[in-house]
Amino acid sequence: MKVFDLNETNIFERDLNKFLVHDSAYFRIINFNIKAGEVFPVHSHPVEGELSILVLEGEGEFLGGEEAATPAKAGDIFICRIDEPHGMRAKTNMRILVTIAPPL
Amino acid sequence: MKVFDLNETNIFERDLNKFLVHDSAYFRIINFNIKAGEVFPVHSHPVEGELSILVLEGEGEFLGGEEAATPAKAGDIFICRIDEPHGMRAKTNMRILVTIAPPL
Repeated sequence: MKVFDLNETNIFERDLNKFLVHDSAYFRIINFNIKAGEVFPVHSHPVEGELSILVLEGEGEFLGGEEAATPAKAGDIFICRIDEPHGMRAKTNMRILVTIAPPL
Repeated sequence: MKVFDLNETNIFERDLNKFLVHDSAYFRIINFNIKAGEVFPVHSHPVEGELSILVLEGEGEFLGGEEAATPAKAGDIFICRIDEPHGMRAKTNMRILVTIAPPL
């Protein structure tokens, strides 16, 4: 068993701050902190699998393909395939937790 | 893409309240709300894989094998193998998000 404390990564030094929580054969867990006004660019990977994006704090928009945007707030969990376009635009400072299974 | 709003499952009707967030070939995501003073009993399954337990709200103790107990508070992520003993004791009302990969 291991523990990771997200209270220790409440850091917004750069526009996009990345903290690897865990990486294994089963899943990769990453905390991203996105500064207000910044965008985690839409991307996708041509592999099998899914990812979840939990909004820990703040609000913004989940970005999909073809300029689709869905409001995102603390407590929302977005789930999509790894090969589907996904990104995030931060309206306020925003913290998200991404879980990728299986990892790329 | 699908969205699940954890604000809609802030419910403590029973001692242990379970809300399935997502289930697929890649991972299962479940929100458990545990009433103050209650225990999510220690258990394990003899299969490959790992699980993460994110404490969304509240505080208590992560329970492992042989009566091991580790303090747990909002923002902590516990990661263990599915075949390792794991459970949770709630000191206050506690909300956790469990991700199991691959699902049992």
